[in-house]
Amino acid sequence: MSRDLRPLFDPRSIAILGASNDPAKWGNRLALGALRSEGSRSVYLVNRNGGDILERPAYPSLADLPEAPELVVLSVPAEGFEEAVEASLAAGARALVGITTGLGETGADGRARETAIVERVRAAGAVLLGPNCLGIFDAATGLDLGWSELQGGSVGLVSQSGNLALELALLAEDYGLGFSRFASLGNQADLEAGELVRSLIDHEPTRVIALYCEDFRDGRAFARAALEAVEAGKPVVLLTAGGGEVSAQAARSHTGALVSSTSAVEAACRAAGMQRVRSPRELVDLAQAELARVRPRGRKVVIVGDGGGHGIVAADVAAAQGLELPPLSEELQRRIAPHLPAAAPTRNPVDFAGAGEQFLAIFEDVTRLILESGEVDAALVTGYFGGYSELSDEFQAEETEVALGMARAAAESDRALFVQSMYPRSPSLVALREAGAPVYREIEAAAWALARLADEAQRPPRGVPELPPPVEGLRPDGYWEARDLLASAGIDFAPARRVTGLEEARAAADELGYPVAVKALGLLHKSDAGGVALGIEDGQGLEEALANMATPSAEGYSVERMAPVAEGVELIAGCLRDARFGPIALVGLGGIYAELLEDTAVALAPVDVGQAEDLIRSLRGAALLSGARGRPPLDVESAAHAVAALSRLAAQRPDLAEVEINPLLVTREGALALDARVLSGENGAHAR
Amino acid sequence: MSRDLRPLFDPRSIAILGASNDPAKWGNRLALGALRSEGSRSVYLVNRNGGDILERPAYPSLADLPEAPELVVLSVPAEGFEEAVEASLAAGARALVGITTGLGETGADGRARETAIVERVRAAGAVLLGPNCLGIFDAATGLDLGWSELQGGSVGLVSQSGNLALELALLAEDYGLGFSRFASLGNQADLEAGELVRSLIDHEPTRVIALYCEDFRDGRAFARAALEAVEAGKPVVLLTAGGGEVSAQAARSHTGALVSSTSAVEAACRAAGMQRVRSPRELVDLAQAELARVRPRGRKVVIVGDGGGHGIVAADVAAAQGLELPPLSEELQRRIAPHLPAAAPTRNPVDFAGAGEQFLAIFEDVTRLILESGEVDAALVTGYFGGYSELSDEFQAEETEVALGMARAAAESDRALFVQSMYPRSPSLVALREAGAPVYREIEAAAWALARLADEAQRPPRGVPELPPPVEGLRPDGYWEARDLLASAGIDFAPARRVTGLEEARAAADELGYPVAVKALGLLHKSDAGGVALGIEDGQGLEEALANMATPSAEGYSVERMAPVAEGVELIAGCLRDARFGPIALVGLGGIYAELLEDTAVALAPVDVGQAEDLIRSLRGAALLSGARGRPPLDVESAAHAVAALSRLAAQRPDLAEVEINPLLVTREGALALDARVLSGENGAHAR
Repeated sequence: MSRDLRPLFDPRSIAILGASNDPAKWGNRLALGALRSEGSRSVYLVNRNGGDILERPAYPSLADLPEAPELVVLSVPAEGFEEAVEASLAAGARALVGITTGLGETGADGRARETAIVERVRAAGAVLLGPNCLGIFDAATGLDLGWSELQGGSVGLVSQSGNLALELALLAEDYGLGFSRFASLGNQADLEAGELVRSLIDHEPTRVIALYCEDFRDGRAFARAALEAVEAGKPVVLLTAGGGEVSAQAARSHTGALVSSTSAVEAACRAAGMQRVRSPRELVDLAQAELARVRPRGRKVVIVGDGGGHGIVAADVAAAQGLELPPLSEELQRRIAPHLPAAAPTRNPVDFAGAGEQFLAIFEDVTRLILESGEVDAALVTGYFGGYSELSDEFQAEETEVALGMARAAAESDRALFVQSMYPRSPSLVALREAGAPVYREIEAAAWALARLADEAQRPPRGVPELPPPVEGLRPDGYWEARDLLASAGIDFAPARRVTGLEEARAAADELGYPVAVKALGLLHKSDAGGVALGIEDGQGLEEALANMATPSAEGYSVERMAPVAEGVELIAGCLRDARFGPIALVGLGGIYAELLEDTAVALAPVDVGQAEDLIRSLRGAALLSGARGRPPLDVESAAHAVAALSRLAAQRPDLAEVEINPLLVTREGALALDARVLSGENGAHAR
Repeated sequence: MSRDLRPLFDPRSIAILGASNDPAKWGNRLALGALRSEGSRSVYLVNRNGGDILERPAYPSLADLPEAPELVVLSVPAEGFEEAVEASLAAGARALVGITTGLGETGADGRARETAIVERVRAAGAVLLGPNCLGIFDAATGLDLGWSELQGGSVGLVSQSGNLALELALLAEDYGLGFSRFASLGNQADLEAGELVRSLIDHEPTRVIALYCEDFRDGRAFARAALEAVEAGKPVVLLTAGGGEVSAQAARSHTGALVSSTSAVEAACRAAGMQRVRSPRELVDLAQAELARVRPRGRKVVIVGDGGGHGIVAADVAAAQGLELPPLSEELQRRIAPHLPAAAPTRNPVDFAGAGEQFLAIFEDVTRLILESGEVDAALVTGYFGGYSELSDEFQAEETEVALGMARAAAESDRALFVQSMYPRSPSLVALREAGAPVYREIEAAAWALARLADEAQRPPRGVPELPPPVEGLRPDGYWEARDLLASAGIDFAPARRVTGLEEARAAADELGYPVAVKALGLLHKSDAGGVALGIEDGQGLEEALANMATPSAEGYSVERMAPVAEGVELIAGCLRDARFGPIALVGLGGIYAELLEDTAVALAPVDVGQAEDLIRSLRGAALLSGARGRPPLDVESAAHAVAALSRLAAQRPDLAEVEINPLLVTREGALALDARVLSGENGAHAR
């Protein structure tokens, strides 16, 4: 859905319904805001009591306006909301902003009311922001409804929380960052985050899109909008919460939002190329970085310090962020050395050893030499630079010139330049920032943001896969059925026979060949319940195994040829269905180490074989599969085939909440599912 | 060594040698600084050219002064340093501050000169700070030599870098933190970091000790001084660098410092209860926390948000820092609920859902209810609070009163109170900070600092062990000799025989019992070089194994009873000798997973059995040893005995650079060393 939001962000006329003289009321703030743009549009204050508001006559109703209001802002009690919407539409409104609280966020009744309202709004060809939202801001059109603190700039902000938007604005001031647009999301009854993101793609003043979002509504549509923005060159930085169990709990009760799980959001971010952050500060730090004139293409960084311990502290901090600090070539060091004192380190970090004090130009000269060498993707200048401006006007002029020279060196060499300074707001650094080099006050922020951009360069968006048409099928109600379902999707299992007792088991084992494994069917947790026996070597062992099974199984047993577990590595592969983002494929390192490593990777499902292989190889434990320490390289491609097949199956079966293979044994030649589990969606019934 | 540093920090008279009228020279800055304290002490400016300096007659030499200068500051060229020191001592100086550069930091010659100078200084009963230092500051005595930017306060700062000290001072201003003392370390020719730390223990104005240090000189003495400070109630926060290979490289060339490895510093921090930080910002964030009136005793935290997304964002951030967010009890929630709007979450996070705006006192009321319940160790208040002061004077007065009430609630309940606010410098929060509650601007800083204090509470200093008297012994020059040495220290190895050929090997295997392992002796990397054969089942296997050994070994073979590797978990245990901190014991998870997990723990050696067990149990992979997922619990105590014995052995053998058992197999009943390696100190000769 891509509707015209011009009436929302650049209305020719506005009506404030519920305008008020009382400074404690939002209707007062909205009216004041609207009147500030009266030069460029008509503004009508409406209050059913009529009278004067803000020293002008208020209209008692929308029907009394001399023209149709393109935008109506509704700041009325919840009980009158439907009536106000009807009146707005009747008056010809094209866009509505619902400030009103007490609707969808209060529960099912409120949500039902919203659904009915949205039907009416859409039928009238209008759009609705909110309800339960705080207002909007558009720097270019001078629209500032409810939001007097925002400075104009190049960040397009969409937020589900007013307080967090305020905090973001205060933090952004540090970096001289302002906002091109702000929309308070509210309950997203009609306009959702995705549609607002999409509206920023063609919004010229917006160069980076920032979001605070708890509830992603149609998560796939949201991800597709973000992907479009990213591909159009507008980075998307997403602050969301609800990763921990506890915060998920709180989020459920905040704005009535359903918080998507961390995994689903993570998968969506990788699909769309969105950058997820954890705090307002991270969002602002990264937004500044995203605006860099030159972005790093990789992780190779030179640290340039002007003396003291800054260089080595920065080197430690940068290395902890995963940045690489390659030693500069001998030749480059020879070219740098004449600019610096005799004992100054030139390897990386490069340390001026105080020489900057004597001759400021070396900041530009040395930085240019390094950037033009092409030996690194970025220079990170750290320490005192910026402070010279504090000393005298002459120093300030000289430092500003040097700073701009550094920015030119970055632009001309097409290499990134990031700066940390203890004087980040000095005039020389304000100029440097405006010239396209991000400037931070703390070295960890600078290194972190640089590393995030390097990640971004090296991890292009995976794309948002289309869901295959739903397929109907039996819902497996046990391990054997789950196995059948997955096998029919093309996944290899160890050869097995379903048997009812010892005699059949013996025959099956003879046929399959020893050693075999036996599983009791129909147990919820086979392994814990003593329902699995492995490595049975002969008939006698088989008899003992069946006798020892904790509970004789009414559903019989599965006798399986024993897989060569010692020769392979176990993965877990699964697909979960998220309420917002749909099916999410997951792979992880299996067995007891998986818990210790917490080593998983996720993607929006379905994934193809190449993507599945990328997922597997992105695991921290991937070295186990690729032949580390003299081990044989394993058949990752077969494992990827299994993961892809599983994800396809799960994606086309919306009735299945969870499909899992655990373990998936990867060997030198193939990948073998050793156990399978399917949970159906509606009742959460458990089948393994 | 505990000398009287009163003449350094509170001299009755000062002479500035090399005082200058030239504002570009440090001797000018020092003279200006000294003159600022002229009211409380005599100040003499000395310059061999005589004449007027800063509008008063300069003395041409120290010999001309009317009285003995207690403190002489030496800002003279390197070539004249010895002469200046002699003149100072001759004039009766008790303390010297060496600003002069070009000595120990330039190489061995300079270090030799320093050694001779220090001998003279000590013989005269004086002390020397530097050379190559920037000056000192003491707020209480009004001494400010070279350091005009520092504000008085309660942080005692010792720094090896002037620029970093300046950055720390700028960052500290955010929190209204000032400095009680500052000493620039320089080359530590005489006064080392440890002695300066010790001098702060009885320095009443100092409440927290902050250090930037690259070279720890006598690391054990430093650690002991820090431990004394910590035990005296003065927390020590240490910023150091050189963790990464690259930054270690840079540090070697900076201030001529030998950077101690990360492991050694980590071990020293745990021994002394020092808090290691990675950046200036972390140092300042933690210093503020260390000054909290009430410190958290554990990790249980309640998040109190005033609305919007702050509560859930904070919950995520806090959980990521390892803080625990227990759900508040039903009863407590029932007591909180009446203060809040109907739908406000009360479980944890507690979210006022905007109610604070209507009634500010709920911040105090609700926080008090929670803190007094004893259900959490700390409250972390997050979001807008502090911003009410921005609205009006009335709000400011009310908010300040509420803030102080919150601080009282924390003090009276003996529970910690930390605050994050988007208005951290508002008057109400300045008052709150002064009342003992740390206030941060960013939620990650608040949560991080709180988590660090909780760590500190739960991990008391281990103590700095005394080194046993050195013992002479043979230096093992091979695996067999290393094995003998460790076995004689009481460490169990698999039974083994040293043999020269097949016949002896057969006899040994028969005696030991099959299966056996065979190792070719005299190979540098036995395993990689095909010099190890495991699980040999019989005589024929033995013959094949010897025939297949890549190189027939002139030194013969070790035939060993095969250990039950499948039934245990492999650790690595070792002891390395650090140039600064001496022997460092290390344990880690062995095998291929150790690399993936990077899971090691270190301590100053020697460790006793209890400490060794703590080390082992502190590994992330410790669950593998204690019976996770139905595994049997293993004999950690025996492993701890082996680690303790190894550490004792290594500690009493300064001639050994490294002693290692890898793997140390921990089984249900015992711990068995399966391989051993000893490196001797001087030539790094390799024996395994």
